[in-house]
Amino acid sequence: MMNVSDRKNLVSTAQGEDPADIVFQNADLFNPFTCDWESTDFAVKNGIVLGTGTYQGREVYDLRGAPVIPGLIDAHVHIESSLLHPQEYARLVIGHGTTTVIADPHEIANVCGAEGIRFFLREREDLPIDLFVMLPSCVPATTTEQGGGILTAEDLEPFVGIPGVLGLGEMMNVPGVLSGDAEIWKKLGLSRVIDGHAPLLRGKALNAYILSGIQSDHESVSLDEAAEKLAKGMYIFVREGSTERNLNALIPLISSHTVSRCSFASDDRHVDQLMAAGHIDDCVRKAIASGVPPELAFRMATLSAADRFGLTDRGAIAPGRLADFCILRDRSGCQIEKTFKKGISVTLETIKPVKALRCHFDCFPPDLHQINIPGQGQANVIGITPNQIVTEKLTYQIDSKEIPDLSRDILKVVVVSRYRPGRIGLGLVHGFGLEKGAISGSVSHDAHNFIAVGVNDQDIIEALHAVIRAQGGLVAVTDRERTFLPLACAGLMSVDPYEQVADQLRELFHHTKRMKGILDPFMQLSFLALTVIPHLRVTDRGPFDVDAFRDIPMFE
Amino acid sequence: MMNVSDRKNLVSTAQGEDPADIVFQNADLFNPFTCDWESTDFAVKNGIVLGTGTYQGREVYDLRGAPVIPGLIDAHVHIESSLLHPQEYARLVIGHGTTTVIADPHEIANVCGAEGIRFFLREREDLPIDLFVMLPSCVPATTTEQGGGILTAEDLEPFVGIPGVLGLGEMMNVPGVLSGDAEIWKKLGLSRVIDGHAPLLRGKALNAYILSGIQSDHESVSLDEAAEKLAKGMYIFVREGSTERNLNALIPLISSHTVSRCSFASDDRHVDQLMAAGHIDDCVRKAIASGVPPELAFRMATLSAADRFGLTDRGAIAPGRLADFCILRDRSGCQIEKTFKKGISVTLETIKPVKALRCHFDCFPPDLHQINIPGQGQANVIGITPNQIVTEKLTYQIDSKEIPDLSRDILKVVVVSRYRPGRIGLGLVHGFGLEKGAISGSVSHDAHNFIAVGVNDQDIIEALHAVIRAQGGLVAVTDRERTFLPLACAGLMSVDPYEQVADQLRELFHHTKRMKGILDPFMQLSFLALTVIPHLRVTDRGPFDVDAFRDIPMFE
Repeated sequence: MMNVSDRKNLVSTAQGEDPADIVFQNADLFNPFTCDWESTDFAVKNGIVLGTGTYQGREVYDLRGAPVIPGLIDAHVHIESSLLHPQEYARLVIGHGTTTVIADPHEIANVCGAEGIRFFLREREDLPIDLFVMLPSCVPATTTEQGGGILTAEDLEPFVGIPGVLGLGEMMNVPGVLSGDAEIWKKLGLSRVIDGHAPLLRGKALNAYILSGIQSDHESVSLDEAAEKLAKGMYIFVREGSTERNLNALIPLISSHTVSRCSFASDDRHVDQLMAAGHIDDCVRKAIASGVPPELAFRMATLSAADRFGLTDRGAIAPGRLADFCILRDRSGCQIEKTFKKGISVTLETIKPVKALRCHFDCFPPDLHQINIPGQGQANVIGITPNQIVTEKLTYQIDSKEIPDLSRDILKVVVVSRYRPGRIGLGLVHGFGLEKGAISGSVSHDAHNFIAVGVNDQDIIEALHAVIRAQGGLVAVTDRERTFLPLACAGLMSVDPYEQVADQLRELFHHTKRMKGILDPFMQLSFLALTVIPHLRVTDRGPFDVDAFRDIPMFE
Repeated sequence: MMNVSDRKNLVSTAQGEDPADIVFQNADLFNPFTCDWESTDFAVKNGIVLGTGTYQGREVYDLRGAPVIPGLIDAHVHIESSLLHPQEYARLVIGHGTTTVIADPHEIANVCGAEGIRFFLREREDLPIDLFVMLPSCVPATTTEQGGGILTAEDLEPFVGIPGVLGLGEMMNVPGVLSGDAEIWKKLGLSRVIDGHAPLLRGKALNAYILSGIQSDHESVSLDEAAEKLAKGMYIFVREGSTERNLNALIPLISSHTVSRCSFASDDRHVDQLMAAGHIDDCVRKAIASGVPPELAFRMATLSAADRFGLTDRGAIAPGRLADFCILRDRSGCQIEKTFKKGISVTLETIKPVKALRCHFDCFPPDLHQINIPGQGQANVIGITPNQIVTEKLTYQIDSKEIPDLSRDILKVVVVSRYRPGRIGLGLVHGFGLEKGAISGSVSHDAHNFIAVGVNDQDIIEALHAVIRAQGGLVAVTDRERTFLPLACAGLMSVDPYEQVADQLRELFHHTKRMKGILDPFMQLSFLALTVIPHLRVTDRGPFDVDAFRDIPMFE
């Protein structure tokens, strides 16, 4: 936000008493306050819009009647999920018109604690886009999780109110809120701006959740659910991520009466989807394709998101606001021709070296005997669901000597703690479809331990060794072939240019396709240990029953 | 706003685990988030809405399908202009559905300085409605004014952020803003929430004014002007006061796309108008009568106003918000049947004694020789304009011995300083129509000196004596008849019940009607000394030319 002396420096130029830095002439300018278009010039100084109208400028940029919209805003994103370093993430999404993201560094905080938040706050200083942080409210997500970071209210408190921090991030611990858990409620007392996360929450429980001070939600999967939340006063972020896609279901919610309360969020989007489909521009295009008037979709992606977070310095091309905007191919779609940040056209070519955040790793690779499964009988097997993160709790009659059971697609899964040497959990999983080799990764929500799934123990060991030795990455191993995507930054993010990361990811997919695996096995792999989503999971202690909320044996 | 422990105390009740204080059943509830209606019950505890749905309550109130809207909000008001003490003002307007007002104590601050602000902050503690204060930004309004109070940025600073204070009130000193005046800009630095006052400001000057951080305006008189301000990002308060009435002109601005940026404001409404026509309910009725869909008018008067000031605890009947609401006769109008504040039906009968704020008066009544006008020639005469506060600068050939000149309606006006003993200014005015007697008052914007207009000097002296002896009031004097309305509270507000004040005002009007005066001569009287509105005024130094911004002689 500009301070008062920054503003004062612009007042005479805004009155036309001296020339602006640059005047953008002949814009077909979208106005989110009116949801209308205006043919006008506008002037910019120090990256700030002085106003519309006829101005003199030291420089002139003729827009020749092109449609211009304010820069796009992502209301809720975990940048780590892109697999990109924040610098590369920013370089990618700004080409899609994004000029501001509200990021919750939940993943890196689970690995590195407060240092993960500080990493984002350091990186934001030097980004081509504006990154704001919502403080991760649930690290660890549950008391059973044993990741690398624990963030109490006391740990978060020093971050409250500092530049770049907007409030408390998605409060996932719904039971903690509803039961009045002391530590959770201390966190709720930290900020006036609190994002929510309340999948399927309805009725009186939803009333209580909102009453606690939580103001937004991005987890609605049905129209009814989103409509109830909106009617009860929540801001609705229509999420369209890589795996969780709610846009089509929620589109009928958007009208001129509700648009001021609705925004878009990407939550988790991989680099490949960001490159192929886009970012918030993709959400806007999908909304328009589903029948939303373009002007309402533009408003959602700009002013509505800015207003929700009290960012009165953006969201519109108007006096005193940031000169963040995009040139569109035409009014009726959202094809971004060019993005301007603070009045400067952003070129995507400049790649600068980035710094990895090296986190504390404390583990050693397992050997063969440590991943041996003895026994037989009625076994608990995780059943994965295509394009969903919910799993099934399956049971099969199994003799452990028969594992892997390719005829029934039952494979071994191994979790190796990052943080506690020698702690290894084993489980069984159905649905990966692999017929040979093994895959492994250091992205494994929320503790982000090392995890592997494979057809034979030798390959599982080799895959885990590769990831652990590199201190992070995704790998596919078959025979003498190995495809590796390094994630040097906290084992979550690459330090390579995004184009290269996307290439590496594609190579990985080619490899796993040859192994007959499902479409994106690493995404499914990353959720196998997520103990907050039903029904059966695996941790570094072995199988975990989410519904009973306790460890269970592999064989009953 | 509720703090986090207040919220926590309500969470189990919101989940239905124990009974609410009261359940309102069978409401036809207006929802400003959707601009739609819902048939529902809703539950309340500790004055807070727990939520909609079926609840058990210790008490039940059957609404029998009656339409319910959230309590109405006045986005900008000078309570002093009602002539009522804040307690009586609140008792009056709550009957009209008002549960929150955003007040700028500009008048009392001009008389008593910071003590005037403190008076409002004390009184708000004990009101049946919620009163929030915007700090008066322009006391005195100009450097030539010599009232009882001066409020520098340093004087205002201690009030910033304290409970009940929302921000900086209407910034009237447009030239000071645009020229970068140091003291004005210090004030602009005090708060993130700043109301504006920029009549007729357009184009680049408006850009600069908005860029300074000022966010709202309630002074637009034409649709074009308001539309430009809204398109440039200002919140628009559609004002409908006693004399300044802008609603009809601005109605076409209101649409489903703009409604989140528009609210209603009464600015200055006298007790008689508040009783006869109403308050914000009157604005809503007028808007509906002019073709605004009732749902948009209701949204303006509730959620839109709350949002503009960041009052997330009101503006809707939704979880965690105040149970402030009104029962309407029907959906299509705004006839208030009953008002509830914090879930309790407000009875209007209880009148409690109020305390006056006694300000420092330092003056003595003038005697006859002090108001004698000698001389002759081309005289500068103030020409008043019906229903406007702009005056004309007239000139007449006059011999002072001929004053009053009833044939040309030229009367004497006398200003006696409240604050500087013996300082008396004389002037001439055309347009009051009085044929006998004199009127006087202690309401005289913005310094609120004593002021009188009359046909003969004896009556002028008697009228001034009456007001000065009582330390405030409005009076009409003819022959042996005198009608007096005491304003014991800072000479601006009565301490009597509002019904009595309205009766007294009506009696005053009957009296001035018999004197052949214009419809509301006290309103015009109160603006004769207002040196910020063109063209000719009179101060305690004599005639003042607003355009030249200097004192001028009576005879050229």
